[in-house]
Amino acid sequence: MASILEKSGFNPDKKLKIVGTNPVKHDGPDKVTGRAKFGADLMLPGMLFGKVLRSPHPHANIRSIDTSAAEKVPGVRAVVTRADFPELPFGTGPGDLSRNIMAREKALYDGHAVAAVAATSEAIAKKALKLIKVDYEVLPHVIDVRDAMKAGAPVLHPTLRTKGVEGAADKQTNVVERLVLAVGDIDKGFAEADVVIERTFDSQPMHQGYIEPQGCVANWTDDGQVDLWCTTQGTHVFRDRLGEILKMESAKIRVTQSEMGGGFGGKTGFYAEPLAVVLSKKARRPVKIVLTRSEVFRGTGPVSGTHYRVKMGCTKDGRITAADAELLFQTGAFTGSMYFNAPQAMFTRYALKNIRTVSYEVVSNRPKVNSFRAPCVPQIVFGVEQIINELAEKIGIDPIDIRLKNAMKQGDTTIYGQTFGPIGFVETLEASKKCDHYRSPVPKGQGRGVAAGFWFNRGGDTTGSLTVTPDGSVTLMLGTSDVAGSRLSISMMAAEELGVPLDKVRAILADTSSIGNNRVTAGSRTTFSSGMVIIDSARKVIKELCRRAAIIWKVPEDGVVFEDGFCKPASSNVGEFAPLSIAEIAAKTSVSHGAISGHSEMNVTGEGPGFGLHIVDVEVDKETGRVDIKRYTVIEDAGKAIHPLQVEGQYQGGAIQGVGWALNEEYVYGADGRLQNPGFLDYRMPVASDVPMVDTVIVEVPNPNHPYGLRGVGEVPVVPTMAAIANAIHAAAGIWPDSLPMSPPKVLDWIEAAQKR
Amino acid sequence: MASILEKSGFNPDKKLKIVGTNPVKHDGPDKVTGRAKFGADLMLPGMLFGKVLRSPHPHANIRSIDTSAAEKVPGVRAVVTRADFPELPFGTGPGDLSRNIMAREKALYDGHAVAAVAATSEAIAKKALKLIKVDYEVLPHVIDVRDAMKAGAPVLHPTLRTKGVEGAADKQTNVVERLVLAVGDIDKGFAEADVVIERTFDSQPMHQGYIEPQGCVANWTDDGQVDLWCTTQGTHVFRDRLGEILKMESAKIRVTQSEMGGGFGGKTGFYAEPLAVVLSKKARRPVKIVLTRSEVFRGTGPVSGTHYRVKMGCTKDGRITAADAELLFQTGAFTGSMYFNAPQAMFTRYALKNIRTVSYEVVSNRPKVNSFRAPCVPQIVFGVEQIINELAEKIGIDPIDIRLKNAMKQGDTTIYGQTFGPIGFVETLEASKKCDHYRSPVPKGQGRGVAAGFWFNRGGDTTGSLTVTPDGSVTLMLGTSDVAGSRLSISMMAAEELGVPLDKVRAILADTSSIGNNRVTAGSRTTFSSGMVIIDSARKVIKELCRRAAIIWKVPEDGVVFEDGFCKPASSNVGEFAPLSIAEIAAKTSVSHGAISGHSEMNVTGEGPGFGLHIVDVEVDKETGRVDIKRYTVIEDAGKAIHPLQVEGQYQGGAIQGVGWALNEEYVYGADGRLQNPGFLDYRMPVASDVPMVDTVIVEVPNPNHPYGLRGVGEVPVVPTMAAIANAIHAAAGIWPDSLPMSPPKVLDWIEAAQKR
Repeated sequence: MASILEKSGFNPDKKLKIVGTNPVKHDGPDKVTGRAKFGADLMLPGMLFGKVLRSPHPHANIRSIDTSAAEKVPGVRAVVTRADFPELPFGTGPGDLSRNIMAREKALYDGHAVAAVAATSEAIAKKALKLIKVDYEVLPHVIDVRDAMKAGAPVLHPTLRTKGVEGAADKQTNVVERLVLAVGDIDKGFAEADVVIERTFDSQPMHQGYIEPQGCVANWTDDGQVDLWCTTQGTHVFRDRLGEILKMESAKIRVTQSEMGGGFGGKTGFYAEPLAVVLSKKARRPVKIVLTRSEVFRGTGPVSGTHYRVKMGCTKDGRITAADAELLFQTGAFTGSMYFNAPQAMFTRYALKNIRTVSYEVVSNRPKVNSFRAPCVPQIVFGVEQIINELAEKIGIDPIDIRLKNAMKQGDTTIYGQTFGPIGFVETLEASKKCDHYRSPVPKGQGRGVAAGFWFNRGGDTTGSLTVTPDGSVTLMLGTSDVAGSRLSISMMAAEELGVPLDKVRAILADTSSIGNNRVTAGSRTTFSSGMVIIDSARKVIKELCRRAAIIWKVPEDGVVFEDGFCKPASSNVGEFAPLSIAEIAAKTSVSHGAISGHSEMNVTGEGPGFGLHIVDVEVDKETGRVDIKRYTVIEDAGKAIHPLQVEGQYQGGAIQGVGWALNEEYVYGADGRLQNPGFLDYRMPVASDVPMVDTVIVEVPNPNHPYGLRGVGEVPVVPTMAAIANAIHAAAGIWPDSLPMSPPKVLDWIEAAQKR
Repeated sequence: MASILEKSGFNPDKKLKIVGTNPVKHDGPDKVTGRAKFGADLMLPGMLFGKVLRSPHPHANIRSIDTSAAEKVPGVRAVVTRADFPELPFGTGPGDLSRNIMAREKALYDGHAVAAVAATSEAIAKKALKLIKVDYEVLPHVIDVRDAMKAGAPVLHPTLRTKGVEGAADKQTNVVERLVLAVGDIDKGFAEADVVIERTFDSQPMHQGYIEPQGCVANWTDDGQVDLWCTTQGTHVFRDRLGEILKMESAKIRVTQSEMGGGFGGKTGFYAEPLAVVLSKKARRPVKIVLTRSEVFRGTGPVSGTHYRVKMGCTKDGRITAADAELLFQTGAFTGSMYFNAPQAMFTRYALKNIRTVSYEVVSNRPKVNSFRAPCVPQIVFGVEQIINELAEKIGIDPIDIRLKNAMKQGDTTIYGQTFGPIGFVETLEASKKCDHYRSPVPKGQGRGVAAGFWFNRGGDTTGSLTVTPDGSVTLMLGTSDVAGSRLSISMMAAEELGVPLDKVRAILADTSSIGNNRVTAGSRTTFSSGMVIIDSARKVIKELCRRAAIIWKVPEDGVVFEDGFCKPASSNVGEFAPLSIAEIAAKTSVSHGAISGHSEMNVTGEGPGFGLHIVDVEVDKETGRVDIKRYTVIEDAGKAIHPLQVEGQYQGGAIQGVGWALNEEYVYGADGRLQNPGFLDYRMPVASDVPMVDTVIVEVPNPNHPYGLRGVGEVPVVPTMAAIANAIHAAAGIWPDSLPMSPPKVLDWIEAAQKR
């Protein structure tokens, strides 16, 4: 339906009462006290417990599956395999998705689901799993992205053909696509350069590391309708994809989201949820599945591992003249890495005339990758921002100055064709130079690094409703998942629009049957987009309130204006009327004229790009290779911080997740192609003692396409981290790291190699 | 928000594809197989079980309550009493409601809640109840409505004063209100009469007899928000009343309805639900309360018992010249009987010029009454329709003919001031005369009775949404409770409007935070009103679909028309375009232009009054007084039967509930003021073997204010039943019953008395 938000109505001079303050989250106390309901917390009468059998082989044909012994175990109510899913063609979205959640022709990675059992207890289900006989024909496997591209490598999908390459139609391959994105003439650009640096880098998969493992309850009713309760970043996407792989209509599926114990992109897609649904169909009972941590590591999607080469050149005075990159992305067993973000974003923050990027997405015998904050960008920026620093070092200018010299500004056009409106990269760099951290001397024995990052921020299809109850309090219905406090920040915007205290506003997260489609909560889109539809809804409600005040006063509708929570006569000509509060209008007209609600369905556009700079001081233990983060500051443009503490939380959380990625986190595979560290003991995430307090500077260069100037702050804070730490390591230890994670053994190797030089 | 349904667009010539057929209910299979989730079926982690302590005294001051021993029982997490509820003034809606769900100054009836316990098991909670010491000062009580009106009767509420009576301000009383409703001049009317009959009648309270006892789970979160899952006929009313008695804002309360195992008016108000909420607050855990059948009888609201006098006169040729009535309604311990329906409806179906009614609502030491189909009307029609038959008998004309002679028609004005549009009473009477049952001879040994009934049918504030998913299937969100199949009939209207198969449409029942306010599902309003907002929503969606087709075709918006599920060019001038289905438009534009939804908030008006006639044949066993129903036919105007089988179900169900009320059901109190039959063994409801198949004739005189002509069919079918059976008993046994229920002992007494005359 048409929005009334044709122009955002952004007014930088408006005095704000609620937006920009730091109230306590409505949903916070229950999370702190353990009373919030997460994916594993729903129980239904007659509910069964589901467990998943997973392939121990990284690559194997599945000749047959015999479930008969498992089915005979007392308490087992259903066993499902590939035979219980509709056959869909490989190479299509639903066909690949279906194969990833339940192996069909082949098991393609260690941990790939091959069967599932629902029983009256978890113990019985586990026992039954052991009785399922899978006849595997084990095949040679390939883990590394470069190995997977080699001639003669084991081929995962016999019918896969490379897109974007001429003559690929008859060649078996593991390369999904070759993508060239370029602008200008790099040869000409490099010819203009006084200094050219070219290096290669690699990175390992890391996991989003959400605390809450996937948990769900599915109930396939006797009329063929499905209720699914789960932890998800996108109920509608879960619903529509489920409809596709089960060949059923979306309207028959209702997905309700639990509270979420972390997603970070990892809960944009589903894994065991469809298995619970199909088990429920077969067992005619509700089925709960909760993944173990080991299953989360083996069976869900981590970040793409990469191997890449970057070459950049600049003039003596610091103008970057050209950039060239070749990027290999390991996408796991199926396409879907969003690798295309990398060539779009890797250089975007510098106004470069000559760029060439060639990117490859490659399958190998690993779990299909999934999103993580700024998907596929931070691991590439790791290389780019090191080279920027190295260039600065070579020509002898300050690393922030070289960035300022090349910084994109309003009016600059990106490699993907967007011409920027007002952006805050220059302001962010200037704030960085001025901040206490940068102005303080580097403590003895430490090194300081800086690096910058960019993220598009996103909009997209979004829906919401706002209803005034008869007592004048306000309910919001949001169609997006709340992964980090969006209920609160959106409630704040609603309260600001309506001129009511925040405590009168409460937001709920809708199920899929209650509201029109929303994109997943991802890409830093939710506070921006859901906020936009709620502001639109609020403005529709204000229009309706004025209409009702006009009815109460018996005056023309344009005789009423709305200000600070009250309908008032537009002028003294209209008549003498005491202002009417929202509560008064609701009390007088809710019954006689129906409920007061505003609704909005939009494809939200006008997102404001985000830029940040990180400053980090490290100490490198040259005997052990251990890197200690001593001080960390994030400077980033939020456009407008609706709830500054939550924005700070994003800045800090992003940086700290980046610290893990930078220093320790990686998937370790044995020669047998099995994951060797599927648990938090062996997969080393940072804990509180590993990181200092992260300082933040919130820059506010408003996005004029949003009524309050908001951009988005979820992704940028992880983009520069690994590069900033690498640059700091360089400063501290004189080495240029070329591989993630920069774990102690690697750091020792680099130091050793440098000493040999 | 403004509706586009300014005119209903009723078109009697429209060919209907779905409306008027009998598809299987979407929610049916799960109800049949036991998988549907009712009030008692939700479980939450850490949930406690609540039990209620109830007064054994019909009338007692509560001096004190000592809960200390109960609180010490291991496993008890909270005990609540009156002290845990805000004090609200008696004589206000919230004040009375609060006192009814938890006794404050006094216990006012046997079964009145005085305390509640939440514990880790039901057994522990029950044990704790026994340790609560209530210090009662037992007071004299009064049960009968006439006794309660006598001077010197025990007074329930010392501050109660009768409304509608001059000089009542300083008199203590049990009479809540005296209401006079009159038209014309009854003295003049009776003077014109050739025959006058005056009789007195009484009726006993009966219970709605829903199979599902009240069950709920309440969760008061640590931020002071409330989630309530319960079986209810009106989530929004539960929410707003809960807000009032707990002094909290509506937006902080979210009420979600379960499936409903029968309501019939009895689930329009709450009982244990607020106790569960307050227990949850105190225990900081979710709390479940499920009432026992005994608690349902003792502690929830039955139908009003009555005592009344009716006098009517007619001319020799059957013209009714005057009607006079005095009506006493027992409302239980608190006002709220809706007794005012009776004087409005008791004579409405006959075009009478002279009527006078005086009605009294009176408190006594019984549970506060609650709604039941056509609240307070059927028990009064019991007398009126006997007198009509007696008049017919006296002047020697057919009982349907006397009704035809006096029947209201379009243009007639009621005693409450409504001038009827098209109504179907004459058509109903004519169909009755023509039907096989009426034309068949009365079998030997049996008697036949007829009686007519009327109900207003209702509209009121109602909201709904309709969303087209990206695959073209359709979700509906309804804000009303589905007590009898409204999800299906409303889905049928949506499918008809959109021209899609019914199987593509699924409806859900919204919680209170997802949608604007709705009146309770009651008064035969839901299929009419929720249907109206969904049709309005569908038409908004159709407008949006046309707008999107115009965008796809790049033609002006008015160049597109919608027909049978497709957008088509309005004329050949617009261009040559293949029609676009809803699914095609959704697939092409859901993402680019946002979700496709229509929403509607209305105060629905234009309800069409309903009329019915019942024909019943009975056999009276003169030795035992037992009455056997041998044949039963319901003839009623539905306006339009959206789903004829469901309409038939309403006709049959209403008649059968009436059979119970007519022959057996009653509350039996001992001299101690305690209910003696709080269970299905002693409270005798009809079972399958007590009733024959009820035949039905659906008359369809469309209501032009509804797009499909629908009226409402929930209430009328119980209105004439008791009178029809009484008239049949008269025909079979020569007696005129004057008391409900017409149970064997009473029938024997009447036969004996008649034999003595």
